[in-house]
Amino acid sequence: MTALIGGQWTRCVDLADRGFQYGDGTFTTIAVRKGVPLFWTLHLARLERDCRKLLIPFPGSECLEPDVRTLCAARTDGVLKIHITRGIGERGYRLPEPQRATRVLSIYPPPDYPSELRKIGVEVRLCENRLGINPSLAGIKHMNRLEQILARAEWTDDGIREGIMLDVEGYVVEGTMSNVFLIKNGTLYTPKIDRCGVAGVMRSITIETARQRGIAVVESRVAIEELYAADEVFLTNCVIGLWPVRRCEHRTYGIGPITEEIDRWLRTKAESELAAACNGRSGLSSLPPVF
Amino acid sequence: MTALIGGQWTRCVDLADRGFQYGDGTFTTIAVRKGVPLFWTLHLARLERDCRKLLIPFPGSECLEPDVRTLCAARTDGVLKIHITRGIGERGYRLPEPQRATRVLSIYPPPDYPSELRKIGVEVRLCENRLGINPSLAGIKHMNRLEQILARAEWTDDGIREGIMLDVEGYVVEGTMSNVFLIKNGTLYTPKIDRCGVAGVMRSITIETARQRGIAVVESRVAIEELYAADEVFLTNCVIGLWPVRRCEHRTYGIGPITEEIDRWLRTKAESELAAACNGRSGLSSLPPVF
Repeated sequence: MTALIGGQWTRCVDLADRGFQYGDGTFTTIAVRKGVPLFWTLHLARLERDCRKLLIPFPGSECLEPDVRTLCAARTDGVLKIHITRGIGERGYRLPEPQRATRVLSIYPPPDYPSELRKIGVEVRLCENRLGINPSLAGIKHMNRLEQILARAEWTDDGIREGIMLDVEGYVVEGTMSNVFLIKNGTLYTPKIDRCGVAGVMRSITIETARQRGIAVVESRVAIEELYAADEVFLTNCVIGLWPVRRCEHRTYGIGPITEEIDRWLRTKAESELAAACNGRSGLSSLPPVF
Repeated sequence: MTALIGGQWTRCVDLADRGFQYGDGTFTTIAVRKGVPLFWTLHLARLERDCRKLLIPFPGSECLEPDVRTLCAARTDGVLKIHITRGIGERGYRLPEPQRATRVLSIYPPPDYPSELRKIGVEVRLCENRLGINPSLAGIKHMNRLEQILARAEWTDDGIREGIMLDVEGYVVEGTMSNVFLIKNGTLYTPKIDRCGVAGVMRSITIETARQRGIAVVESRVAIEELYAADEVFLTNCVIGLWPVRRCEHRTYGIGPITEEIDRWLRTKAESELAAACNGRSGLSSLPPVF
């Protein structure tokens, strides 16, 4: 892992940074291919939106993009993580005055998931750890992630790739690190992220793409029974792309035609994003020709 | 602020520490008087209990106490904060193997609260930001504190010393940084910390002391109406001790006799803890004669 903190090559976070003290910040995780941070403008928009919700002054693209370019040149294929924290503070929860957000950019090797998972699908489990309901934090990819960690700690079997999390009322919300989609009678359903959960970037790309291609998309409360009754189930995030679910607990699913079609659309979308970046039409202004 | 991280004088937290990445850890805040960390054995027990709940290997008192002694000698009156995180990890929520917890000890100057607050009481507000309900994290003083931060951001008026937080169902749970107690007809009530909130060390001392002295104590769901109908209300934490509440929104309270009595008991308890430490009978074995 290589990192820039406040634009400096370091992996040293100040102990007084509220990101450490309280998980007081937000982050996003970006796939980097051939030096291009895929869906950059969407990640930038999510960081800005989440900062606004957390009352953190957003550093701005002019501040982030030079760091992004530097790290994507240092490792042209991998995973870029960007944290924005509320910055250094005194002891106590009160907001510092003035607030000076800390930007932390780090780049990692690509994950070692077998590439065929996207074709053959994955096995998942239902987690016992639940998501608390709190509308004021819902949707935000904030740095308070103990619920996901306790859920992920429920299994060590490498054959199980993801855990589905329910909220405390028992509704299906998401995977520990992914969003979940169901297909039933040709309609695409995904849990509404208004009470808990993360509104992932790949989730919004998936919803938008499906709608553009004429598939009805419904964001709603999803009961476990509906998960089990679905014709097809798949997971998304920006690093995995799309994983069909071939098994959840005792229920097996086929890799359905709509899932395969959406996966093709998402791949096409990523490819054109990549091509546009190569031709200098990326959202990341003046991306260097690193490949 | 002066700090020891993993026993070294530094304020540099590794970016890969899960405390930063995910708020994956727990902490406690201790009043230090005349070189003595007050109620050390209780803080140690709470750290151990919270680590167990979070599946973090507890470093052990033999590991923490030398650092505590060093910092309490460096600043004999102040506030000692101890974080235990899950340590360094790869990207992703999965628990590192093996887990090597990071211990972070930092000491701060005493807070600048006017000392008369303990006599004249404080004004508090009802926060709009709510606490999500999640029994598996309830009670733990973990490093996921965005709910408290958003609540504390609701006011900047220095005349208001604390905000009372409700859970998403509307029950009174705690202050942003303190626990709350109500007295009604001679009985002491405090919200049950089984669905959200922090089970503070001073809260448990208060409950135990009141019971020993013959006051009935009830831990229960507390409705806002009950807060307003109370004869006396007070707040506790290990740094402030006890603050009577003299006003919450439009409701004013007198500083009641039971609150004053409990405050005297708590002061006595702290004094005898201090005296015991001076005589070498502290829970902190071989505390140096720093005063």
